[in-house]
Amino acid sequence: MKPSIPRGTRDFGPAEMQKRQYIFNIIKTNFQLFGYAPIETPTMENITTLTGKYGEEGDQLIFKVLNSRIHESKDDKKELLKKEFITSLEKSYNSELLTEKALRYDLTVPFARYVVMNHHALTYPFKRYQIQPVWRADKPQKGRYREFYQCDADVIGSDSLVNELELIAMMDKSFAELKILVIVKFNNRKILSGIAEILNASDKIIDITVAIDKLDKIGKDGVIKELQSKEISAEAITKLEPLIDLSGTNDAKVSVLKTFLASSEIGKKGIEEIEFLLTNLSSINIKHINVELDITLARGLNYYTGTIFEAKADSGTFTPSILGGGRYDDLTGIFGLKGLSGVGISFGVDRIYDVMEELNLFPESVNKVSTTKILLVNFGEAELMYCVSLAAKLRAAGINAEVYPDVVKKVSKQFEYADKKQIPYVGVVGSNEMTNKTIMLKTMATGEQQELSVENLVNALK
Amino acid sequence: MKPSIPRGTRDFGPAEMQKRQYIFNIIKTNFQLFGYAPIETPTMENITTLTGKYGEEGDQLIFKVLNSRIHESKDDKKELLKKEFITSLEKSYNSELLTEKALRYDLTVPFARYVVMNHHALTYPFKRYQIQPVWRADKPQKGRYREFYQCDADVIGSDSLVNELELIAMMDKSFAELKILVIVKFNNRKILSGIAEILNASDKIIDITVAIDKLDKIGKDGVIKELQSKEISAEAITKLEPLIDLSGTNDAKVSVLKTFLASSEIGKKGIEEIEFLLTNLSSINIKHINVELDITLARGLNYYTGTIFEAKADSGTFTPSILGGGRYDDLTGIFGLKGLSGVGISFGVDRIYDVMEELNLFPESVNKVSTTKILLVNFGEAELMYCVSLAAKLRAAGINAEVYPDVVKKVSKQFEYADKKQIPYVGVVGSNEMTNKTIMLKTMATGEQQELSVENLVNALK
Repeated sequence: MKPSIPRGTRDFGPAEMQKRQYIFNIIKTNFQLFGYAPIETPTMENITTLTGKYGEEGDQLIFKVLNSRIHESKDDKKELLKKEFITSLEKSYNSELLTEKALRYDLTVPFARYVVMNHHALTYPFKRYQIQPVWRADKPQKGRYREFYQCDADVIGSDSLVNELELIAMMDKSFAELKILVIVKFNNRKILSGIAEILNASDKIIDITVAIDKLDKIGKDGVIKELQSKEISAEAITKLEPLIDLSGTNDAKVSVLKTFLASSEIGKKGIEEIEFLLTNLSSINIKHINVELDITLARGLNYYTGTIFEAKADSGTFTPSILGGGRYDDLTGIFGLKGLSGVGISFGVDRIYDVMEELNLFPESVNKVSTTKILLVNFGEAELMYCVSLAAKLRAAGINAEVYPDVVKKVSKQFEYADKKQIPYVGVVGSNEMTNKTIMLKTMATGEQQELSVENLVNALK
Repeated sequence: MKPSIPRGTRDFGPAEMQKRQYIFNIIKTNFQLFGYAPIETPTMENITTLTGKYGEEGDQLIFKVLNSRIHESKDDKKELLKKEFITSLEKSYNSELLTEKALRYDLTVPFARYVVMNHHALTYPFKRYQIQPVWRADKPQKGRYREFYQCDADVIGSDSLVNELELIAMMDKSFAELKILVIVKFNNRKILSGIAEILNASDKIIDITVAIDKLDKIGKDGVIKELQSKEISAEAITKLEPLIDLSGTNDAKVSVLKTFLASSEIGKKGIEEIEFLLTNLSSINIKHINVELDITLARGLNYYTGTIFEAKADSGTFTPSILGGGRYDDLTGIFGLKGLSGVGISFGVDRIYDVMEELNLFPESVNKVSTTKILLVNFGEAELMYCVSLAAKLRAAGINAEVYPDVVKKVSKQFEYADKKQIPYVGVVGSNEMTNKTIMLKTMATGEQQELSVENLVNALK
């Protein structure tokens, strides 16, 4: 039977791994430059930790783990199980009799759980990063996997908007190093609440943002028609007009919003927060990303309470969301610890990879299947052991070296190995070289050869 | 409700993560120095990929994942499920109706599956490393977790014993850098087969090795009693005597084994392989580990066919197995691809961590909760933005820098933050420093202070 892997999951071979590690390294280095410290949480969480945190749809996408038979089920549990199973099936798969554990669905809820469990040992503001896979039983499609990595950085225990500002600086530096042109859209939940308040339509805010967001595609008349179809009143639609027309620079937008939200306290608070970020962007010397206020950005309305972030690639045809984030005023409240405000962002490495692959953004140095610098090629048993000894010296000097481990009659097979693995240098050892205590170094790209002492070989490759 | 995590799993906070990353980095660097290339496989495998590969006990320790309700169960599946469930429960939890996926139990079987699925794209000998967690529903205890990392390096598609030799070199270099005194025991499956052949007791080989292994504890008479209790014949026990007495150098042991196994073809082949390794150890210039032939080492007899490795710490009171490995003559045969021999080792990072912690082997540089080099302390709003701008310059120079994000009346609170996070430097910015475009740099360990220009600050911290 031909083996396979579950739908929506992937193997990563050496070529993909080099490129993935390149992305992880850039993100991780930047997390540390900005003072975030790493944590990791278990792959399995108690189901009760996860359910009810991601909305109804989210709950259904959580992968549940079956209780293990031998160490968890008490003797009578199995009996009980048989009797109660039909009833429990009616309710849900998620019976505690069957499953008490589930796979991590994101990194934010486990982080909140971690903070609550370690509250007294932590120093606040607590800045953590976390780079781990998550699992969702979503329908697989391009850019959507059932197992994918999240790279999260969050600060918890500080209300200061300086955290948001520095997160923008971190996005700028990270995407600059990845060489992805990026547009970072931001918004503020309080603006959206203000708009809803002004229009007296707090239950329609999603409908409103979705409709306005379609302006480019369907034109102003189309937007108005859509608003009408969502039963937004004529009066509200007239009021909304300045927001439908909203365009120009961030400052121009803020100016319109100030007028629009003049009578909403929460709206004005939102404006204030946005102005703080815009005013102080100069302090962080943004070089690479475009930062754009977008009042139609309405992700995570269930939990975000202030700033909302989303980043997308600004070139190419495949432009999924590659980063999301925002501020939660009560991140740990779900586990009973009130009053800790948090703000953070999450890089979606798997989509960043797909975008970089499409735009050919990986540098030459990582675009290969091997990190080996030199392959030592032998002509026979004695030469092979000479190679083994030589390789030890090269590695002691920090040079990635391989010995072709078999004695094969066709030496060309060993060269073919180096070629296929894109190893840039081959060291050939024959009886001459053994006598002279040297090696013949061949540069694969040029075919150039030179006989070198071991010391000179080390220096040449270092 | 107070949140918790599943039994046998762990959170890793910043202090533990620094130390774990230190171990991972050393192992990963060495894998690459020896020419191993990274791969990763999915956390979930199809159940059929895993079952039957780890023996009966192993099968029961596999964590199974429940099918997700919405995207996998066909409409009628649930109905079917109800009817068939009682029957299927009788057989096993592992009903395909309920679960088609399971969590990775080790890295070897997924590797074999990967090789078979990618056979035609791979260059042989294929050397891969893989660093990922695995899950086992084992009873948790000291040194045994339900989620733990394996760090595997395997070569597949080469029979050469040079691979074994280089694996020994890699163990030596890795454990030397980790500074763990280690004894690497090795044996050969063919020796064990030879002994069984000579004694005509092939079903008793485990009983025999277990008994001989107790020599130090129970003495020769004890060993003989145990052998008798396992129904080893008197004749076989007499024959065994030279092996019970086996001691001294590796060469001395080989010499006894040569006589003992003189009439066993497979035994003699085993001797030959062991002699190759012992003779050529000099080529790889082992500096740190003790390599010891131990004929009682009998791990993995179900699958190993040649060399067997196991490493344990050689000091301290907690000396679990921290590395295992060996040669499989037919690694991919389980998935229908015959004739590929593989050999590899697996570092157990979680136990290495526990051993290093007990022996206090982590260097000062990683024994801390933060990698931040400097905290910028502010006296108010204006100074805070100056700090933000300064931090950007420090980070551009590669210096890990944090800005205390809030304006707090008590500046001592900011110093306390630096102190608790073990941040070695604090940069203080007041109105003087802002006017002078300088910063007051305080070295936390000594209390020493100096006013520096931004340029000098960067140079001082680099």
